[in-house]
Amino acid sequence: MTSVTIPDEKRLRRLLRRAVVEIIPEEEFAAALRTGRRLRLKLGLDPSAPDLTLGHAVALRKMRQLQELGHQVVLIVGDWTARIGDPSGQSQTRRMLTAEEVKVNAETYLRQFYKVVDEARTEIRFQSEWYDKFDLETVIRLTARFTVAQMLQRDDYSQRFAEHKPIGIHEFLYPLLQAYDSVAIESDVEFGGTDQKFNLLVGRELQEMMGQPPQQCFLVPLLVGTDGKVKMSKSLGNYIALEDPPDEMYGKTMSLPDAVMMDYFGLVTDVPDEELAEMQEALRTRSVNPMELKMRLAREIVGQFHSPEAAREAEERFTKVFRKRELPEEMQDLIVPKSVLEAGEIAANLFPSLLKDLGVMPSTSEARRLISQGAIEVDGQRVTSEGAVSLRVGSIIRVGRHRFLRIVDADKQS
Amino acid sequence: MTSVTIPDEKRLRRLLRRAVVEIIPEEEFAAALRTGRRLRLKLGLDPSAPDLTLGHAVALRKMRQLQELGHQVVLIVGDWTARIGDPSGQSQTRRMLTAEEVKVNAETYLRQFYKVVDEARTEIRFQSEWYDKFDLETVIRLTARFTVAQMLQRDDYSQRFAEHKPIGIHEFLYPLLQAYDSVAIESDVEFGGTDQKFNLLVGRELQEMMGQPPQQCFLVPLLVGTDGKVKMSKSLGNYIALEDPPDEMYGKTMSLPDAVMMDYFGLVTDVPDEELAEMQEALRTRSVNPMELKMRLAREIVGQFHSPEAAREAEERFTKVFRKRELPEEMQDLIVPKSVLEAGEIAANLFPSLLKDLGVMPSTSEARRLISQGAIEVDGQRVTSEGAVSLRVGSIIRVGRHRFLRIVDADKQS
Repeated sequence: MTSVTIPDEKRLRRLLRRAVVEIIPEEEFAAALRTGRRLRLKLGLDPSAPDLTLGHAVALRKMRQLQELGHQVVLIVGDWTARIGDPSGQSQTRRMLTAEEVKVNAETYLRQFYKVVDEARTEIRFQSEWYDKFDLETVIRLTARFTVAQMLQRDDYSQRFAEHKPIGIHEFLYPLLQAYDSVAIESDVEFGGTDQKFNLLVGRELQEMMGQPPQQCFLVPLLVGTDGKVKMSKSLGNYIALEDPPDEMYGKTMSLPDAVMMDYFGLVTDVPDEELAEMQEALRTRSVNPMELKMRLAREIVGQFHSPEAAREAEERFTKVFRKRELPEEMQDLIVPKSVLEAGEIAANLFPSLLKDLGVMPSTSEARRLISQGAIEVDGQRVTSEGAVSLRVGSIIRVGRHRFLRIVDADKQS
Repeated sequence: MTSVTIPDEKRLRRLLRRAVVEIIPEEEFAAALRTGRRLRLKLGLDPSAPDLTLGHAVALRKMRQLQELGHQVVLIVGDWTARIGDPSGQSQTRRMLTAEEVKVNAETYLRQFYKVVDEARTEIRFQSEWYDKFDLETVIRLTARFTVAQMLQRDDYSQRFAEHKPIGIHEFLYPLLQAYDSVAIESDVEFGGTDQKFNLLVGRELQEMMGQPPQQCFLVPLLVGTDGKVKMSKSLGNYIALEDPPDEMYGKTMSLPDAVMMDYFGLVTDVPDEELAEMQEALRTRSVNPMELKMRLAREIVGQFHSPEAAREAEERFTKVFRKRELPEEMQDLIVPKSVLEAGEIAANLFPSLLKDLGVMPSTSEARRLISQGAIEVDGQRVTSEGAVSLRVGSIIRVGRHRFLRIVDADKQS
């Protein structure tokens, strides 16, 4: 392997600032990068959930940037901690995975992992290398190093404890095993989302107790899901998978709320900071159509996980189907009350009377009838009598086959 | 081995009532005794503290009574839990014992143990039989069965937690290992002092979880030490050891405060309940000299752990030295301030002025001179210039060779 590159100040700033919440301690990490020593960058993998999403890519991309300087990724297949399960507070005991399941899951994971991370600079380690040999004495010595009160400082534990929800004693073993992994592989830096801060710090502490230089903890932001509301996760269905085909990846990106678009640019693209600042300003002054920027984002993402060619093709198909297909050149402008636009949506059962109030329909019952026939769409989505209807400036309401209305900004219209 | 005897109601009552705080659940235990099945009576031994005192004898005597019905004692040498140490809240990590130390300590223990328990109906098991083979998976499965909140219900843990004193995570393993012992040996009944209630109940619960009939928990009272104040223990120095020679055992018993004498009769002698009731009444009506009863107690105890012959001889020597030798028939009564009697003692450096104030000595300096010559005794104990002098109603102060004063009760004297 070639030697390690020491980053210049600009590159260092980008490493330390973009897509980073906290590096503990940052000075120590920056100093380590300047020594020219090859760092061991630890990441734990839970083989019971081997599907990677764009949310995982945030940390992986940081690791990739460090690999490009010559550093070494060490991926730990958590075949032991998967047996415990980092507790969500729900299921008390997970079924333990068989060795075969772990192997298959790890392969699935790696196929996706290497979409971002450089395989040539990755070392794969299984927890079973060290935990298969663990005996009761080692467990006692390990558990004796930490206190109950320390563990209860972890947010989710303290919350469950306060709410009188059960915390299995084995759950206290989870952070300790994850921490011991750092000792076993002599980790220099461990990566994780902000929700991993506690576990990573325990690793740092344990290394110090056991006479090793303590790892730095590199905490990246949690990417919000396609709903724009909560952390992206498979179980919530608000995810973009790294293995999603180009059209799906493009379409899911286009479905993002405008409000989170810039987060995505910052966390999962290489668009330079200066350009991001310009986009932000253009959005603020409304001198750009958000849709245009979102198409750029979708191209960046598909381009990254498939290819620029695939991104172009996906965009073409998307544009054809969702934009060009049926929209007439001229559309009626529609001014919608500010309160509705600020809410961003209206309850479906109130939508008929809104249409009547705005003069779109002669009566609420007529509006209801058309809705029940599936004859009203907003931004290509059929309106139903349940849920809510999203409305924003630029939204296009189609009534029947040929009537189109575009919501305009009342201020700009005047 | 012969078959098991089902106790008659009187014997059963004695088993269930005398020297018992709680049997959980009592009906279940009584029913088990009536089945005629040979019960496995579990007791754990901490090989890091192998010296037995009269305090331990309370539980051992109950086990002996059950052995006499044909039941089986199973003694568990806690060579693994001794590594953790049932936490006193002080020392965080104990030095682990070597196998050789465990062996020697276990032998020391057994020599004393068999003074009470019938060796022929005792099975000895070492925790290492099962814990040497424990792997991480077994630990995880075991710890997954209990919650942090459950462990924090244990009085000493909850207290330390509330006081922000550290509780090592390994300390939560202690009750679990003790509990698993019950599973390993298929315990029917586990014995312990009231301070073991939590641990014993965890054993009961774990057996049930693991498909075994749950053990009953047999809780005996904690014997108060010779100071009459706190639990008898080696570390507090307020103990009568089962290996104390006859004279020492006799003398220590005679030094007991009158107030705890009846407890001792109930917990560590076979004097029938009816007789104990009579004694209690006689004490209440002051129709007996407490000293006489205490001599009976001392005889019972020495007789039990040595022999009736040894007890008689010890009594003779005691009587000669401490009573007959020098006490005149008539003694001067002495009224001591209530505050001193209530404290039960006075600092040695204040004793000379007390003697002067009471008119026993002409001056404090004269009192000090006699004390420095070792010429003043209280209850046969030479008074020195350090520590404290115990004083109570009935105490005899000897000044020089021939002058005796007896402390009397000011109220009764009137």
